[in-house]
Amino acid sequence: MKTLKRLTILLSLLTLTLPTTTTAAPPPHKNVILMIMDGTNSDILTLSRWYRGTDLKLDTILRGGVRTYSAQSAITDSAAAGSAMATGVKTKADYIGMNPDRRPVLTVLEGAKLSGYNTGIVSTSPIQHATPAAFTSHVLNRDEFGDIGEQQVYQGLDVVLGGGGAWLKPQSKEPTKDDDGMLKTKQVSREDGENLFKEIHSSGYELVRKRDGLLRGTTSPKLWGVFADEDISYELDRPHLNPDEPSLAEMTHAAIDRLSQGEKGFFLMVEGSKVDWAAHKNDPVGMISEVLSFDDAVREALDFARKDGNTMVVAVTDHGNSGLTLGNHGTNRDYKSLPADKFIKPLKKARLTVKGATSQLKKDRSNLKEVLSSYGLGELNGREYGRMEAAKSVDDLENEMVKLMAKRANLGFTTHGHTGEDVFLYSYGPDKPVGLIENTDIPRVISTYMGFSLGTDPFASWYVDGVKFYRERGYEVLVEGRTSKNPVMVAERDGEVLRYPENKDFYWRNDEKVGLKSVNVFDGERFYVHVEE
Amino acid sequence: MKTLKRLTILLSLLTLTLPTTTTAAPPPHKNVILMIMDGTNSDILTLSRWYRGTDLKLDTILRGGVRTYSAQSAITDSAAAGSAMATGVKTKADYIGMNPDRRPVLTVLEGAKLSGYNTGIVSTSPIQHATPAAFTSHVLNRDEFGDIGEQQVYQGLDVVLGGGGAWLKPQSKEPTKDDDGMLKTKQVSREDGENLFKEIHSSGYELVRKRDGLLRGTTSPKLWGVFADEDISYELDRPHLNPDEPSLAEMTHAAIDRLSQGEKGFFLMVEGSKVDWAAHKNDPVGMISEVLSFDDAVREALDFARKDGNTMVVAVTDHGNSGLTLGNHGTNRDYKSLPADKFIKPLKKARLTVKGATSQLKKDRSNLKEVLSSYGLGELNGREYGRMEAAKSVDDLENEMVKLMAKRANLGFTTHGHTGEDVFLYSYGPDKPVGLIENTDIPRVISTYMGFSLGTDPFASWYVDGVKFYRERGYEVLVEGRTSKNPVMVAERDGEVLRYPENKDFYWRNDEKVGLKSVNVFDGERFYVHVEE
Repeated sequence: MKTLKRLTILLSLLTLTLPTTTTAAPPPHKNVILMIMDGTNSDILTLSRWYRGTDLKLDTILRGGVRTYSAQSAITDSAAAGSAMATGVKTKADYIGMNPDRRPVLTVLEGAKLSGYNTGIVSTSPIQHATPAAFTSHVLNRDEFGDIGEQQVYQGLDVVLGGGGAWLKPQSKEPTKDDDGMLKTKQVSREDGENLFKEIHSSGYELVRKRDGLLRGTTSPKLWGVFADEDISYELDRPHLNPDEPSLAEMTHAAIDRLSQGEKGFFLMVEGSKVDWAAHKNDPVGMISEVLSFDDAVREALDFARKDGNTMVVAVTDHGNSGLTLGNHGTNRDYKSLPADKFIKPLKKARLTVKGATSQLKKDRSNLKEVLSSYGLGELNGREYGRMEAAKSVDDLENEMVKLMAKRANLGFTTHGHTGEDVFLYSYGPDKPVGLIENTDIPRVISTYMGFSLGTDPFASWYVDGVKFYRERGYEVLVEGRTSKNPVMVAERDGEVLRYPENKDFYWRNDEKVGLKSVNVFDGERFYVHVEE
Repeated sequence: MKTLKRLTILLSLLTLTLPTTTTAAPPPHKNVILMIMDGTNSDILTLSRWYRGTDLKLDTILRGGVRTYSAQSAITDSAAAGSAMATGVKTKADYIGMNPDRRPVLTVLEGAKLSGYNTGIVSTSPIQHATPAAFTSHVLNRDEFGDIGEQQVYQGLDVVLGGGGAWLKPQSKEPTKDDDGMLKTKQVSREDGENLFKEIHSSGYELVRKRDGLLRGTTSPKLWGVFADEDISYELDRPHLNPDEPSLAEMTHAAIDRLSQGEKGFFLMVEGSKVDWAAHKNDPVGMISEVLSFDDAVREALDFARKDGNTMVVAVTDHGNSGLTLGNHGTNRDYKSLPADKFIKPLKKARLTVKGATSQLKKDRSNLKEVLSSYGLGELNGREYGRMEAAKSVDDLENEMVKLMAKRANLGFTTHGHTGEDVFLYSYGPDKPVGLIENTDIPRVISTYMGFSLGTDPFASWYVDGVKFYRERGYEVLVEGRTSKNPVMVAERDGEVLRYPENKDFYWRNDEKVGLKSVNVFDGERFYVHVEE
């Protein structure tokens, strides 16, 4: 360490004594695009390639594998996996940007932002969903979309594109039930009554709500796109059912376009969120739709990176899901004589995903045949159709539909949950990761390339227990409205009153609003803040 | 091409004019060790790592992926996959060293041998099984163990280690039924009545039959080890049930030891054959046993390669099998809270694989409880035990046993057959392959490193249709004993009689035995030979 310090001093001196010339090249920028296709195994990639009929863009940058387990389980959820890839720390299920000891840990996106880079997130889920949340917020429960959404709005991101409009406004809506086993929030709307759209406006974001607006493009440096109240449509369904929503590739292109206008470079996280959702449902059509949509976004990233030369692209999935295989118990004997068409043809008959198809089902089910046909199940025998008619709920109907599709397409599934295998690592560009790595290595590789370290100060000890910190300095401290939707940490000493509102990037010193470089985090017990002494 | 030719000439001239000195280094040798774990998916590698508790050797050399499909199917069998990796040509199921047009194609092992390298094969299956067969023989049906075994004996290999003694001798045995869905030959013994052990002896091989003999080591340059009539035991079972058999690592070590005594270098193919067999049976215990056994062999290869510096190691599986996943329908909801022990502990209770366990079952099944216990199923409730008692055949019993194990270990399976996903590529050393490749790229990378090409002459047109060839030259040609077990191509002209016996590496010119550089191949219709004019 001492040698290193001396070397650093020496280098500093050298730098100081070097003559600066007017012809010097601009300082090199560095960009990182981290792309996550949620819940994807090897088989669905192979199947998607057969479906498309040509190589994937991903195929050109396969370089190794990633271990995905969490601190709690051999099979991770997206929260723990996202947090691992964001913070470099394996953590427990449902934790977002928090370590296993329930402390907030700075994310690679926050580190990049604090180091002067532009930052952005893109997802087809609500942006408050686990993966984008893990890079931009700190909560103990991934379902706290209200807190996550608020932290994101106050993070000072440059670009945010995705779904999740419902959690940016107070207008309430009936509680939703589990959707694909994933969208488990208790209600769709802000419990705290805040309208975050106002804050987005006043923070200088250009707000876009439709594909047209995104594609038109403008010059505002900050961009916030909210294209759906909840998630964005499956790519296969989008042109038919929600043509006003953009594709993941279009969002990725727009994000890169904005972010690359900065001088120092940028960090962008792109999630193809819904491979996972379709996998939970065991819908191979939806899975293929989202893998190919993700691959189109990878093409955007690689096109930019190839031209740019200073851009690292890392693409991974956070975990396997569904145990999909080409081959099932029906192919126990004849697997070796099944041309790709035996898998692909039945899938290609589907014009919509199973979710897209059943979204068109009338209440009286009078159009059941059309719905089945739109999912490629046009020719059913009496027994098969009887099973569809007998389905009690839409969920049951979807299950019957995907089971029949899997049978026809010779596909197997082992579960409606995640799986624990190592997954493929795709990477491109300078200093890219290769070989078999831990998901926690990803932020390390990225931050090293970008020239900062989450593991050393100031970032390593960024968040402190605010109550403890101020008490030790003679303040009287309490958390006001601890069980309310808008708790505030109040620290008082000698007539000075400091008020730290949860999830915001500022505090009040008496009547003065003081900006912070990060958001305030309240986990229900402890109130974490960043202080600079 | 012309430029290249000129360059080659220029280089040749340069080489000729360079002064040779007595202190010159010996010519550089080049070695390639190609290691194939048959029928392995990503999940079983992850599971095996959890089981072992430490990283695998394979983990240190993960570098990409491999596409495995055959010319016939999106899901390959081991014959087409082995042939692809041996010849660089995608072919049909069951074909061994033959292209889709039923013509023999020279293998990378044969190319290496013809280029002056030492060559060897090692497997835990009968060496006549699809994968080792694909590197050393040419037949249209992988089940033709008799033809395959004979070609291997006449291939002039330097080292052969594995099972399969039954197909080297005429002593007949009752036909065996499918074993693990794999061992499908019609009978165990040579139908042609030949005793190939004699030929092995007279060809100068040191013949070893037991582990002791292998470990003792000798100095004979040529080594043939036959350690089992059929396959070698699963590694977990071996010390208990067949301690006279060597491990795959021991065979690999011995093979490298012998092969590396040559000056030019060597090509060695090592197959961990029985991950696949256990996968067909859906026995996770057997699968883990064989992955770890394979990994131990990889350690041997890497230890050698690291010291040697001129050795390329490539390790792959030929295809997925069974669709094993960590996670199943029982973990649909709680997957994210399952520590590794929830998968590993039930598996660790097994002292034997399911095959090993049931091999100890008495005819009257009086020791059923002990058998179940040896497979880790010591504590069964009444219902579970009832199901075991009710099993009609040993096959049924095994199925019940593995199903219960999978349930306890939270594992899923989709099939008893192969699966079609891209698999991991492991590689180490100079000019190693990286990224996503086709299985057919493997022999190309290897042969390029070793300095020859299977795609150009003389290797590309090595085999000719012998009947056509000699007829065009005015011979009268016929195949004697076409439907017999020992067919011979006879070509006669002007009193000269040439007799090419099937599977041998020579022909008779009248009474003179003329050696050939490759074996004669008869596919039932055409008689393929190599001729040098």
